[in-house]
Amino acid sequence: MDPLRHVKPAVRGLAAYTVALPKAPVKINQNENPWDLPEAAKRRVVEKALARPWSRYPELDPKELLEALARHSGWRSDGILLGNGSNEAIEALLRVTVGPGTKVVIPEPTFTLYALLTTILGGKLVRVPMTVAEEASDDGDVGRIDARGPTRAPAVASARVGSGTMRPIHSRAGFRYETDALLAARRASGAPVTIVCSPNNPTGTSLEPGDVERLCRDGDGLVVIDEAYHEFSGRTVVPLLERHPNLIVLRTFSKAMSLAGLRVGYLLASPGLVREVNKARLPYNVNFFSQAAATAALEEKDALAATVHRLVAERERLLARLADVPGVRAFASDANFFLIECLAAAPKAVFASMLRRGVVVRDVTSYPMLERCLRVTVGTEAENDAFLHALGTALTESGMDLTTGRA
Amino acid sequence: MDPLRHVKPAVRGLAAYTVALPKAPVKINQNENPWDLPEAAKRRVVEKALARPWSRYPELDPKELLEALARHSGWRSDGILLGNGSNEAIEALLRVTVGPGTKVVIPEPTFTLYALLTTILGGKLVRVPMTVAEEASDDGDVGRIDARGPTRAPAVASARVGSGTMRPIHSRAGFRYETDALLAARRASGAPVTIVCSPNNPTGTSLEPGDVERLCRDGDGLVVIDEAYHEFSGRTVVPLLERHPNLIVLRTFSKAMSLAGLRVGYLLASPGLVREVNKARLPYNVNFFSQAAATAALEEKDALAATVHRLVAERERLLARLADVPGVRAFASDANFFLIECLAAAPKAVFASMLRRGVVVRDVTSYPMLERCLRVTVGTEAENDAFLHALGTALTESGMDLTTGRA
Repeated sequence: MDPLRHVKPAVRGLAAYTVALPKAPVKINQNENPWDLPEAAKRRVVEKALARPWSRYPELDPKELLEALARHSGWRSDGILLGNGSNEAIEALLRVTVGPGTKVVIPEPTFTLYALLTTILGGKLVRVPMTVAEEASDDGDVGRIDARGPTRAPAVASARVGSGTMRPIHSRAGFRYETDALLAARRASGAPVTIVCSPNNPTGTSLEPGDVERLCRDGDGLVVIDEAYHEFSGRTVVPLLERHPNLIVLRTFSKAMSLAGLRVGYLLASPGLVREVNKARLPYNVNFFSQAAATAALEEKDALAATVHRLVAERERLLARLADVPGVRAFASDANFFLIECLAAAPKAVFASMLRRGVVVRDVTSYPMLERCLRVTVGTEAENDAFLHALGTALTESGMDLTTGRA
Repeated sequence: MDPLRHVKPAVRGLAAYTVALPKAPVKINQNENPWDLPEAAKRRVVEKALARPWSRYPELDPKELLEALARHSGWRSDGILLGNGSNEAIEALLRVTVGPGTKVVIPEPTFTLYALLTTILGGKLVRVPMTVAEEASDDGDVGRIDARGPTRAPAVASARVGSGTMRPIHSRAGFRYETDALLAARRASGAPVTIVCSPNNPTGTSLEPGDVERLCRDGDGLVVIDEAYHEFSGRTVVPLLERHPNLIVLRTFSKAMSLAGLRVGYLLASPGLVREVNKARLPYNVNFFSQAAATAALEEKDALAATVHRLVAERERLLARLADVPGVRAFASDANFFLIECLAAAPKAVFASMLRRGVVVRDVTSYPMLERCLRVTVGTEAENDAFLHALGTALTESGMDLTTGRA
């Protein structure tokens, strides 16, 4: 008599999605926008909320918000599905497409939820490793590949020289998607679903629009591009939706749109596909307050775009500064975060030392390929300075000689 | 080349959850509490919201709210899972237990979402029809079963005399659960999951706690009791959780708690089971505003309890009045709504006529057994009077002789 035996074996074998989130004054661990929605916009939302009975259901299909999203994204409103965060939108998509044994191609490392949701539904993951490319830096050191020993093995094993389009100036190294390997994995497995996060959490890598098209043209398998961080890359594949009925784009209000606290995301696809995913969407999944907040955020487009520009400038400033810090390797990124690799000091020690100084980043050492990495969200200018200072102290503390980068 | 072929066949065959929700001044179609959360409570929530950055994620596991729910429900906080509405909690539960071919026992008629969610996951429904019992009314007319012809066939076919405990005075007829049939269906099918809504939407029927125990004791299959409307029945099976690790109780803030607009629900079960369901719960599924509103609603327990008492009194007043209205049969209910059966007039004509008079109820004629029924939510006193008046006019309009109930 054990009721737990009715839980699917694949689920019992899983660890729950969990994450240690220590508190600290400089919170650069969740890829949030450090700048809030403007106060005036918050007041508008709150006034609307006070004027409305909370005891009444939200709109089942909020037409005005869907139309505002259509204007914002450049895609038709009947091809948009709202989610309680983009997590819920992809969960609904997987629920209508994935059953026992269904293959799902994902790169690795990537956002952990794709694998978790696929596994719960009984699907099988086909993982395609990313590679690391060393790039031209501003001192003209082109195509340098350096191996620093066994601790860097996973990255180095697959490192190769990247194409010239890949990295902005100052960037020394970057993760990249292997489109040929993704295509080969799709073909070999016959996977009906491929999910690529672009820019990728946690590596910051974009999949070039041309490569997205290659994936879409290769059969009719669904190609899901998670654009949670697209604003920081200045690019989107939404214009490709018109030509590719197997393309699905995910978006969120949790990052550039400053609404992580209110959970709004959306999925863009052909109206026919949206109709099917809609069957798995729970009715009233986005509450009236979040709907109003999303509407307000769309009205604050210019203010939010200014925060994006500021964050991108800060990201490039940080990457340039880190290029001069021995003992870490910072990876180029198209998002509002980037990875740093601890070359000599133990990453968990660096994490703990920074935390003691009031700076909390994300420990991603449990991800494949990232055994020595921490993920750093770009914050305000002051937060970023605090991070640089805490990192320097942490590395010194680790007893490392900062002139050589060796312990 | 058809990307839709990657959508599971069971999903393609489904109709989406949809519902016609015409607008009208008297809105008694969604089982909402007609009385809002007190204004002071709404202001407290809003002040909290303004003081908080919206750009930051909500708490992953909101301890304070979980502890408040533990005090409210009388069950341990590590046995509680929060959902974006109780819909999301049951969806997560089914996702970890139901795969292709998994049997799920449900009564019928009942809330349509159980069948929809089960089907999307590939599960197979085992449907157990409810029965209709005629009951003692206040004029001493005991155990009367009357057949009014073929339009009432489904109900009459299975009608039987109910037990004496079933209905309060004034109630003429009521739907009831057939516990023996539920048990037999569970055994015959070996279903690992049984879902019973108690009180049931849309019939208002409760499953007696003794019968819930019978289900729980019969093997270790999971017994899910959806208590969305329990406040209006004055009963709960939460005390049974201690003894029955296969019992799962669902609750919502959308009905008695006046928060339909903000989507908060919860699931109560053994901590071991909650840990498993938690794996399917999306992180940050309840946003900070809804968390704050739920906390505020729990603080307004007394005010909300007063609305429950008022609604129950109004329900009984309406049922007593309807007992004297020829042409309709009203069914007893433990919830904040009840069914009326149109004996002669076409239910869709009655619905439309009331709507023209500004009263919108729910057309449930597409449910099994309810071909001639409308569902009426109990509203404020004035709304209920408007309903009675609109119903009388609608029946007169239909050309029926009100003294005989025949057209």
